[in-house]
Amino acid sequence: MEFFTVVPPDDARARFFEQFGALAGSERLATEAALDRVTAREVAAPHALPAFSRTTMDGYAVRAVDTFGASAALPAYLKVVGEVPMGEQARVAIGQGHAAIVHTGGMIPPGADAVVILEHTQPAGDREIEVLRPVAAGENVLNVGEDIRASSIVLPAGHRLRAQDLGGLLALGITEIDVARRPRVAIFATGDEVVPPSASPRPGQIRDINSYTLAAQTARAGGLPILHGILPDAFDTLVSRTRAALAEADMLVLSAGSSVSVRDMTARVFDSLGTPGVLVHGVAVKPGHPTILGVAGGCPLLGLPGNPVSAMIIYELFGVPALFRLQGASVPRGAVAWARLTKNIASESGREDYVAARITQRDGELFAEPVFGKSNLIFTLVNADGVVKVPLNSNGLEAGTLVEVRFF
Amino acid sequence: MEFFTVVPPDDARARFFEQFGALAGSERLATEAALDRVTAREVAAPHALPAFSRTTMDGYAVRAVDTFGASAALPAYLKVVGEVPMGEQARVAIGQGHAAIVHTGGMIPPGADAVVILEHTQPAGDREIEVLRPVAAGENVLNVGEDIRASSIVLPAGHRLRAQDLGGLLALGITEIDVARRPRVAIFATGDEVVPPSASPRPGQIRDINSYTLAAQTARAGGLPILHGILPDAFDTLVSRTRAALAEADMLVLSAGSSVSVRDMTARVFDSLGTPGVLVHGVAVKPGHPTILGVAGGCPLLGLPGNPVSAMIIYELFGVPALFRLQGASVPRGAVAWARLTKNIASESGREDYVAARITQRDGELFAEPVFGKSNLIFTLVNADGVVKVPLNSNGLEAGTLVEVRFF
Repeated sequence: MEFFTVVPPDDARARFFEQFGALAGSERLATEAALDRVTAREVAAPHALPAFSRTTMDGYAVRAVDTFGASAALPAYLKVVGEVPMGEQARVAIGQGHAAIVHTGGMIPPGADAVVILEHTQPAGDREIEVLRPVAAGENVLNVGEDIRASSIVLPAGHRLRAQDLGGLLALGITEIDVARRPRVAIFATGDEVVPPSASPRPGQIRDINSYTLAAQTARAGGLPILHGILPDAFDTLVSRTRAALAEADMLVLSAGSSVSVRDMTARVFDSLGTPGVLVHGVAVKPGHPTILGVAGGCPLLGLPGNPVSAMIIYELFGVPALFRLQGASVPRGAVAWARLTKNIASESGREDYVAARITQRDGELFAEPVFGKSNLIFTLVNADGVVKVPLNSNGLEAGTLVEVRFF
Repeated sequence: MEFFTVVPPDDARARFFEQFGALAGSERLATEAALDRVTAREVAAPHALPAFSRTTMDGYAVRAVDTFGASAALPAYLKVVGEVPMGEQARVAIGQGHAAIVHTGGMIPPGADAVVILEHTQPAGDREIEVLRPVAAGENVLNVGEDIRASSIVLPAGHRLRAQDLGGLLALGITEIDVARRPRVAIFATGDEVVPPSASPRPGQIRDINSYTLAAQTARAGGLPILHGILPDAFDTLVSRTRAALAEADMLVLSAGSSVSVRDMTARVFDSLGTPGVLVHGVAVKPGHPTILGVAGGCPLLGLPGNPVSAMIIYELFGVPALFRLQGASVPRGAVAWARLTKNIASESGREDYVAARITQRDGELFAEPVFGKSNLIFTLVNADGVVKVPLNSNGLEAGTLVEVRFF
């Protein structure tokens, strides 16, 4: 029996996302320092790439027409009129019956339209070669603009930059780029029983770990975690401290105990922070149903269960997508594996379940072994490689089913 | 026709890996700063977790035996002898017929062995409750050591730390951890035609991008990239500069032109750096067959093709696994998707092919659309979501085949 109306996870996310969007403002970075950051606007090519025609092979730049019909039996004879040094403009022009030595990556001299590779030629006296096979126009040549045309859009807005994207930008001489700000996330742990990890807990006390697991998840998703430590379960303190934190943050995360009175207090705190306040109080998901989602003045607010497994899973389901939304990007695909379940997983229709699983390999096949454990046990996730989702309208998954394990 | 003996990729990696192992030495970090770092040694639990018995629900701590046979028709009557405040040691003891109010996460008082949830009770006069259902011993209770037992190994050596691992360590009060050093990777670009990204290339010149794509891949894999800039294709300079760099690095990466003379020079440079020198010269892979792998004094040496797509793919196949090996870890699983090929991919048996692919979604199904392009074109990878591998002993993949796309 719950004292709130639970909402299916997808509906909860939709209600949540309706109330906030990408952060205003961007930041200019050196392109080489922008890995994993999100483009703030689309980027156009200032010039074509390559900017000059290049050979993709070692050989001779020629006019293709001069090689037509060439064979080992009846080679074409071409006069070697020069060589194109690497990194320099071609100073030799190719006329009828001419060839110039070129090295992979070098410039195609004017007049030439193809490259005969070295292996299809042989020397024939002084400054002459035999061409043993014909080449077509454009063969072994990279034309101007073949990689990217001038002024074309090379990256859209909202694109998370990967290694090759940095490469593409630098190839075009784009050494600075405007990226979305990293969302600042104010993280609070609450609970009269919670002490810092460096403390020696007395009987009845436990160490705060949610602040650190959520900070790590935040950093992975491009956010800037700001740890505000531990607050007591006291309404006035919670309101004043979270309000002050929110003034300097873009998102607020509070992990709280799961007793009913504490949950209700979190909801009242969120409502006090601004409009629309609490949007969802209770999600049809296990673990983590006592989740609270809200928004105040465009800032997402997340009230997570205090137990560490629920907190991490709920943050992955709602907090991480919120962080990418604040950056104007979609959630990048994570590591997954398809594996065969080794045991039945029981569930209830109307609820999405996330069950920790360990991946094992036997005879080249992957198996997903559920790590059952109370959701309070952080070592359930430490001992797991990922989680298996049991869909909303399912009564469970049978052993032997092929399931997608999301690495976690 | 190649002037070297090509080796299948798996054999090449095996020869390479035979000659180096994990780096000596480790580094002590604050646990909260150790995300994605690799444990240098196994970690044992200094104490049990939880360290005291806790309730997982709001309700009453009781002796299970006192509730046996209880029902709505015939409730068990228990005397409420106190309440356990959150974060404090339980100061009340539970005798026969007693109950104490407990809140989720609170300590189980001595004498109690189960918790009746609030919803299965109702008040019955002053300081008395009716219990409407029986509980079994241990129900709604988290016992001492149920998460982790004292002295048990919580993490092995060589484990890459995730958010939950940091949480597990901090829950045990382990606020510092010994992790493998980040391998220092000396990165060189070579080529008389190569200029820095900030330069305006003259005709015949191109901008260096490999230094930056390889640096990004290095950082992702836990390495510390050290960019040494661009060297001319001159043997003596290459030898002296790489030797000096290697004295302060754990791995050396050189991307060089693909002309035969340049490749041979790279091989001679590697041989001059120490023993065993060059191990593999040519790998049966496309793109990237002119790859050179070597080791000098325990340091991996990689000679990559100069063209940016080959350089990135070869670094992912050999450099990234080498970086994890230097850290004593295996390569973590990356993001993948199973998708249906939209076009045939031609290949040759005896060669592993990596083809860039874009993922599209239609009617809930994923499709992998090959992005064909000369391996010189960085925008082939910019426009792709990942790569599809065509296995060594295959003549290609047919349209409609379900393939694994590795996100890249």
